[in-house]
Amino acid sequence: MESFKIGLCQMQVDQSKELNLARAASAIQEAAQQGCQLVALPEMFNCPYGNQYFSSYAETFPGGKTINRLSQMAKENSIYLVGGSIPEQEDGKFYNSSFIFSPTGDMLARHRKVHLFDIDIPDGITFKESDTLSPGHAATSFTTPFGRVGVAICYDIRFPELIRTMTLQGIVLLILPAAFTMVTGPAHWELTMRARALDNQIYVAAISPARDKSADFIAYGHSLVTSPWGEVIVQAAEQPSVLTATIDLKMLAQVRQQLPLLKHRQVKVYQA
Amino acid sequence: MESFKIGLCQMQVDQSKELNLARAASAIQEAAQQGCQLVALPEMFNCPYGNQYFSSYAETFPGGKTINRLSQMAKENSIYLVGGSIPEQEDGKFYNSSFIFSPTGDMLARHRKVHLFDIDIPDGITFKESDTLSPGHAATSFTTPFGRVGVAICYDIRFPELIRTMTLQGIVLLILPAAFTMVTGPAHWELTMRARALDNQIYVAAISPARDKSADFIAYGHSLVTSPWGEVIVQAAEQPSVLTATIDLKMLAQVRQQLPLLKHRQVKVYQA
Repeated sequence: MESFKIGLCQMQVDQSKELNLARAASAIQEAAQQGCQLVALPEMFNCPYGNQYFSSYAETFPGGKTINRLSQMAKENSIYLVGGSIPEQEDGKFYNSSFIFSPTGDMLARHRKVHLFDIDIPDGITFKESDTLSPGHAATSFTTPFGRVGVAICYDIRFPELIRTMTLQGIVLLILPAAFTMVTGPAHWELTMRARALDNQIYVAAISPARDKSADFIAYGHSLVTSPWGEVIVQAAEQPSVLTATIDLKMLAQVRQQLPLLKHRQVKVYQA
Repeated sequence: MESFKIGLCQMQVDQSKELNLARAASAIQEAAQQGCQLVALPEMFNCPYGNQYFSSYAETFPGGKTINRLSQMAKENSIYLVGGSIPEQEDGKFYNSSFIFSPTGDMLARHRKVHLFDIDIPDGITFKESDTLSPGHAATSFTTPFGRVGVAICYDIRFPELIRTMTLQGIVLLILPAAFTMVTGPAHWELTMRARALDNQIYVAAISPARDKSADFIAYGHSLVTSPWGEVIVQAAEQPSVLTATIDLKMLAQVRQQLPLLKHRQVKVYQA
């Protein structure tokens, strides 16, 4: 398959889980109607982003309401669905987890955010995810008829080693549910997505919640897709929107042939 | 030492080695007079960039004319000098090598370009360094009273693993003699330098030859310095110029404290 179409649902996230699920369902349907074969939601799409919310919104697998609804949405629309992320509970621990479903509604993979966001910028943003969350311990990818797709969550993208690991596992596209802040977004969002795409010669699709100035945590928005040549090919503004992009595997192959970065690695020189 | 000043000599490179050495000497002196404590030259500053030139311009260590002159220039100006790069010959092999000198004229380190530039973009640029050159096999850094400084050459920058390796060895500043092309320069120069600086929370200084439209190989120019926050802090245009920048180690420490990326690495998850 030489190309396929993806949809990014930059939805608004509110206090009501039910409203969030309804918005997700609506955005996914819209993307599917536009011909998207793979659709993705933002980080913490069913829950306000904040340590005080995670435990009460958390779900377990199997059986969680959001998880079951995501499976249904994938099946009803016959799409691959990267279910953004939600707070997940297991054995008394909480995780920032993404559940991924096939067009028949089967769960294909789960990514637990590996790198927890602990940041302290005076007069800027202070956040400590590790106060409530535990980290995952694996890179995550899954196969589709279009090629292998990787999933990471937000702060994971800041670690080139993780995205390289997935690239070596064969991904052609990275899906990144993410909620950058109003400090790190303007400074680093586009730069980081473009660099990971360029260095690994993959597509990167980052899906943010829409910006809600009344929320505790104000997400940057600006969901985007970057190409294997390091260009932004589509980008949303701040408001809720469904963004679509074509993933051109022929173009990806051409970039890798013309500038064979992945073949030129000199692994013996590198230190882990 | 909380800060120090560096100078980037974006000089024109011609067919005459003697003229190139005179231009380097003049630019270095200008930087030193402006108070720079560390000065750097571009990639292949004594030789036109092209496989047909490397063997005839190549020098051996010790004894090479350019190498001796660089030592003198460092001593005369009492500066740390990263001598861009030159073609080096040893045991019948040729390398793209950077020689680095202390303010007393002693050689501190030598970096041989690890990643050779073999690229083939139809209707763009075709170049195959490996037709004539052999690769180096090590990351290179050296100590100064200001902190540890890394050196890589041009295409080396495209490999995040190499710059991460140097960061783990403790560098605060990467010096990159480089000649990006008129295709890759506009597309990737600023993006790549900013991303390496941001991801590793170091300063990156990239030094290009000035653009010479009559040359076989037309360099992009645009020498620049990027900060540990991923910003371009100074940037040259295309013509010959001496660019200076202050390396603020307090700012670097603040960035690493506020956003502790290097402490948040999850090495067990990564694959080499």
